[in-house]
Amino acid sequence: MMLDVADLAKRLIAAPSVTPATGAVFDELEAMLTPLGFAVHRFVRGDGPEGSDEAPVENLFALRAGPDGSRHIAFAGHLDVVPPGEGWASDPFMPVEHGELLHGRGAVDMKGAIAAMVAAVAEVPAEAGTISFIITGDEEGPALHGTRALIDYMQAEGIQPDLCLVGEPTSVNRLGDMVKIGRRGSVNIFIDVDGTQGHVAYPHLADNPLPKLVAILSELDSLTLDTGTKWFQPSNLEITDINVGNRAHNVIPAAGAARISIRFNDLHTGHSLSERVMAIAEKHGGRARPVISGEPFLTEPGTFSKLVSTAVEAETGIAPELSTTGGTSDARFLRSVCPVIEFGLCNATMHKRDEAVAIPDLAALARIYTRIAKAALALAETEN
Amino acid sequence: MMLDVADLAKRLIAAPSVTPATGAVFDELEAMLTPLGFAVHRFVRGDGPEGSDEAPVENLFALRAGPDGSRHIAFAGHLDVVPPGEGWASDPFMPVEHGELLHGRGAVDMKGAIAAMVAAVAEVPAEAGTISFIITGDEEGPALHGTRALIDYMQAEGIQPDLCLVGEPTSVNRLGDMVKIGRRGSVNIFIDVDGTQGHVAYPHLADNPLPKLVAILSELDSLTLDTGTKWFQPSNLEITDINVGNRAHNVIPAAGAARISIRFNDLHTGHSLSERVMAIAEKHGGRARPVISGEPFLTEPGTFSKLVSTAVEAETGIAPELSTTGGTSDARFLRSVCPVIEFGLCNATMHKRDEAVAIPDLAALARIYTRIAKAALALAETEN
Repeated sequence: MMLDVADLAKRLIAAPSVTPATGAVFDELEAMLTPLGFAVHRFVRGDGPEGSDEAPVENLFALRAGPDGSRHIAFAGHLDVVPPGEGWASDPFMPVEHGELLHGRGAVDMKGAIAAMVAAVAEVPAEAGTISFIITGDEEGPALHGTRALIDYMQAEGIQPDLCLVGEPTSVNRLGDMVKIGRRGSVNIFIDVDGTQGHVAYPHLADNPLPKLVAILSELDSLTLDTGTKWFQPSNLEITDINVGNRAHNVIPAAGAARISIRFNDLHTGHSLSERVMAIAEKHGGRARPVISGEPFLTEPGTFSKLVSTAVEAETGIAPELSTTGGTSDARFLRSVCPVIEFGLCNATMHKRDEAVAIPDLAALARIYTRIAKAALALAETEN
Repeated sequence: MMLDVADLAKRLIAAPSVTPATGAVFDELEAMLTPLGFAVHRFVRGDGPEGSDEAPVENLFALRAGPDGSRHIAFAGHLDVVPPGEGWASDPFMPVEHGELLHGRGAVDMKGAIAAMVAAVAEVPAEAGTISFIITGDEEGPALHGTRALIDYMQAEGIQPDLCLVGEPTSVNRLGDMVKIGRRGSVNIFIDVDGTQGHVAYPHLADNPLPKLVAILSELDSLTLDTGTKWFQPSNLEITDINVGNRAHNVIPAAGAARISIRFNDLHTGHSLSERVMAIAEKHGGRARPVISGEPFLTEPGTFSKLVSTAVEAETGIAPELSTTGGTSDARFLRSVCPVIEFGLCNATMHKRDEAVAIPDLAALARIYTRIAKAALALAETEN
């Protein structure tokens, strides 16, 4: 008899954990994993004030080692949630059922999936192989001291999974309709142009930075970065902000600033795009400062994706689409460790008011995760 | 013996009158004009709170009528001053002499010139013709209830000057080197573009307004409005502000806004330029809202400018340049009444810290104004 996934999910939802998370929600997860034979290691990183990028973040690594020479599958995810916002029909941290739906912040992103992982591994005998949990309290925030710190810990301990399944809510309309085999990279680039302030009536005594800023943005907006690849959409550049803040109608401002965001496929790197934008900015008399949030990753369709698709189809009857769309996730970090695939609940209500999961999906997801774990651990050593 | 112009200027400077001005500074001017035979009419317009566009503004119209059929010259100007700002060597409203310089806010812009006007008209016999003063307390502010209200008053009273001399500080390096025979027009245009907010990872679900805004600004920046005229510089368009205010790095913003400022010559009107900008904004999916600050004016070189130049040269030995450069002044309103020319002190320190006038310039300006008044009143009825 499988553990009650909805009950596990409720316990996690009832421990408020707006990003960055520490404490109670990790106590709950530890209390679930320990009886299943997992050795749990928790640690906190960051010592800055609340609200800063250095605010404390808790991380949890749990390991149940199989026999020597076993395969190792890691389940990865996060226990932090985005702020609930206003206007919920019920307390976002008091899980409540309405018919088939379980409401609460984190129900789909991604406490529900973590509950499913717990129930899933309870169904996998210890002798089948090694299973680990890579769980952070900071995926929704700056992600400086979250999964990156967990990877550092694993490397220091010599722990090397063969495959990693991230439980982000990848399903769109029905559980199982989409699996993510990659994600685009992401870079934000801050553009600044300096000039010389002056009176609009005497433009020869001033140097207006805004025509330069407009020329930079116009050239950037006209770029076609690529036309997509077999597995990726075309890379896309958006101008996300422009700010001057000059309230004086008769004054030519001294400076202007803008920000762009590029989501890019594996034809590029954050560095190559940054260089290109910097060259355009400099050509027009400005400068650009990139902040790379993540490089693209792709787990080429093969043994791992087939194994996941088979498990999904066996439980749902749906052959999932292998996709690389959407935002970034912690898979951008885990890709450096081993092949990574993401699969989880329907994402329609993630980050929204009255976030909810269909209760039958929770048990179905647990069964899918069980199939994935068993199949992954049964792979021959030459297969990945 | 001419009145002591520096003494008159000190009395005006000592009455603080940061724009919009009412009260004491007008009491001083009235006390100077009444003994010279002027009938003084003062009125306050505006009943809004301090700091608003509707804050009270005082205006003064003074008339000394000559014999029936006399010519009528008006001296125009303002008693309000811009805020002193920080860091003065002495109290900006305590006039103080340092060697040849008289310091104080308004010394050159334009209490010194008004003092010179008073001393000048004292030298003109009443039988020479009609002289008036058109003096407002709001030239440096929104100018809604200042010179415009004075013009309304004059029209209601059937008062029609033949010529008007505005005492703005038009001289650049030496008193007398520049006379303004015109001014460019000025229009600020506010540009808005709306879109649909969304996540940068899903641009097809959003409609980014910023590429449209950039396209509008790029096209506006590329315009050549004209190449100048015999008397005017080329019209000039400056982008003065762009604001989006989107702090979320991963969000496509819902709207963007910009502001441009056009200074234009008499090949255009505020309306014609506004129509042109509105068409460009609409073409790219935005909209434009113009605020016309002033139409251009030109008093074609002729009898009036020659009379002013002759007076300047007789006192200073300099043949003044006839110019249309610089910002706007209340001449933009007075041009609808009669031919207008502007001439006054050196403008190097106007609106600056430690504003100062060369004391010998004050008496020289008074003598120039006397010559202008006498010559203007002596013109035959067919000359203007």
